[in-house]
Amino acid sequence: MTDPLRISATYRLRVAAPDATHRAQQLALEQSIEMLVTSVTDPHVLDTMVARVDNVATDGDGTHTACLALSAETVGDDAGQLMNMLFGNASLQPDVELIDVEVPVVLAGVWGGPNHGIGGMRRYTGALERPLTCTALKPIGSTIESLVHLCSVFSDAGIDVIKDDHGWANQRRAPFAKRVRACQQAVTRSNAARDRRTLYAPSLYGHFDEMRAQIELARREGVRLVLIAPMVCGVATLVALKREFEDMMFIAHPSLGGLRIAPEALFGKLFRLFGADAVIFPNHGGRFSYPREVCRAIARHHTQPWHDLKPTMPTPAGGMSVDRAAEMVGEYGRDSMLLVGGALLSAREQLAARSTEFVNAVAMAAEAVTA
Amino acid sequence: MTDPLRISATYRLRVAAPDATHRAQQLALEQSIEMLVTSVTDPHVLDTMVARVDNVATDGDGTHTACLALSAETVGDDAGQLMNMLFGNASLQPDVELIDVEVPVVLAGVWGGPNHGIGGMRRYTGALERPLTCTALKPIGSTIESLVHLCSVFSDAGIDVIKDDHGWANQRRAPFAKRVRACQQAVTRSNAARDRRTLYAPSLYGHFDEMRAQIELARREGVRLVLIAPMVCGVATLVALKREFEDMMFIAHPSLGGLRIAPEALFGKLFRLFGADAVIFPNHGGRFSYPREVCRAIARHHTQPWHDLKPTMPTPAGGMSVDRAAEMVGEYGRDSMLLVGGALLSAREQLAARSTEFVNAVAMAAEAVTA
Repeated sequence: MTDPLRISATYRLRVAAPDATHRAQQLALEQSIEMLVTSVTDPHVLDTMVARVDNVATDGDGTHTACLALSAETVGDDAGQLMNMLFGNASLQPDVELIDVEVPVVLAGVWGGPNHGIGGMRRYTGALERPLTCTALKPIGSTIESLVHLCSVFSDAGIDVIKDDHGWANQRRAPFAKRVRACQQAVTRSNAARDRRTLYAPSLYGHFDEMRAQIELARREGVRLVLIAPMVCGVATLVALKREFEDMMFIAHPSLGGLRIAPEALFGKLFRLFGADAVIFPNHGGRFSYPREVCRAIARHHTQPWHDLKPTMPTPAGGMSVDRAAEMVGEYGRDSMLLVGGALLSAREQLAARSTEFVNAVAMAAEAVTA
Repeated sequence: MTDPLRISATYRLRVAAPDATHRAQQLALEQSIEMLVTSVTDPHVLDTMVARVDNVATDGDGTHTACLALSAETVGDDAGQLMNMLFGNASLQPDVELIDVEVPVVLAGVWGGPNHGIGGMRRYTGALERPLTCTALKPIGSTIESLVHLCSVFSDAGIDVIKDDHGWANQRRAPFAKRVRACQQAVTRSNAARDRRTLYAPSLYGHFDEMRAQIELARREGVRLVLIAPMVCGVATLVALKREFEDMMFIAHPSLGGLRIAPEALFGKLFRLFGADAVIFPNHGGRFSYPREVCRAIARHHTQPWHDLKPTMPTPAGGMSVDRAAEMVGEYGRDSMLLVGGALLSAREQLAARSTEFVNAVAMAAEAVTA
């Protein structure tokens, strides 16, 4: 990344070798001016707006890697427009995959990354050294009474973050306002007896205005962390919310993120860029099929130095169990948050014991890593 | 669709035959309660919230079709939440594709479809019988002067709809407010001399609040039609905007819509359900690879009776040319809007003549269809 006015986007092209360069040039037009250069008369458009093909290379598997330089001017300051220019129309062309993205420092500054990031997750929970623990309120359709019970058990056990399942919205049986009030109160009661602090993270739904109202309501109840699915609500919504609520933290959920954009780029880089303090992603070996290398790359993108963006908390999830806590801590290190959901609830009458076991397993694994 | 409280969702599963039924059951849990039923104690959750596998069938190509009945109660009234429950986590599982969706009448009423639909597009333009013509303002990065010139030429030629390219946002060289004012004024001037009316459709960007402000500004200038990319801004944003601005019409753009959701279901059904008066989709034989049958199915879903939703205007696009006007009118019939963008601009000095040729070709093709 040397050109301060260009976004570097790397695509995989599944085309025959003789077509690769032409395909890359077509893609450069599709993702910028959407017309032939021969029809363009304005020199500014030709020099500045048209995406540039910097390199096309053939890979060992017969696919081709095309590096394009997209004009930052085509994007302006809108996160949705970045998605549009990176992969909007290309998403409709099955021979193209977006595998990496790098933004110039000026655009990193425009979106600015997380408000708080890993440091904030540590300060707000009081878990200053070890990996964090996280679980989910399930199943949707439960009564508020049963959710309150879960909140009490989980926070008494010392789990750091209790998030709504991402399927929670404003369902009849546990509407947002009542649910958030009751759950946060349960967590607050439990926190009062301890020297560290469990965070409850309600799930936002709808559009920007609705989410803003939800955050305002939740903040009044003491909530400081919320769950948001940027690919459902639009990435510009996340950016605007994290700007407006500077004391809030955001966990991004990958729902609807299964485009042909590499998870490393989307969940690892773009979600961090747009302001996620933590990002949930499907760990290998669970209900999802991401390879181990992909998961490690997501976490690496969350935590490695990148412009002056704060690091994001990697949150591997998706069918994880207490048994895997040590392995996951070994894999992701101390700067991670382990999310175990259904595997706690499957303990039924032993929920409290299983929750404590989870907390202890992570604490012990962390000591082993440190030692 | 007989159960008034269930959404019918059909998925294609790419798994080995002995695993198909189990995979469908896993999917039903993933897209509803996200946990094992054996861990659920609440009978309401078991009876009402858990998605039901209604049928699993093996197809000729070795894939399997699974029909699931999702609980309407899990969705409430949020369009984003419908996307979440239909395909949120499943989007991260490459062996699953969403191929069809049907909603109960109560949910059709919740979102309500287009404000105006095909009838509105006809009334607003005055094109009461024939297919509509549409073109695009390209390339992004142009000056406002050159856009104004294009608007004048296109509307003098009698093109019905002039839309912003979907890459237009708030770029420095032609900021939204100035661009919309200048382009609408050019179109208004041209309309004053004629008995029919060209519509200019600016492209919305950002989140709900920003889009609301953009529409308010555009309405004051006389704009009645806007372009929106629901998969970029979130489908709930489209729903809320079309509710708030009852006199406005919305063209939905497919940008970022390339998930493993069949285009027929996403662009044909869901975009109509959420309120698109017209939907742009890639026609076969252009820059995109949708088969002819898929394109026809999208248009059929736009126009056929569906609950009491108004029909949506099918808008085939993506590398179309004036030469294909007759063929496209033959394919899609009178209730369609043909979008030819770059192929007009490639005429350069003959832009006015090529634009008139487009308008005439559609009018003549329409007479042939009617005759």
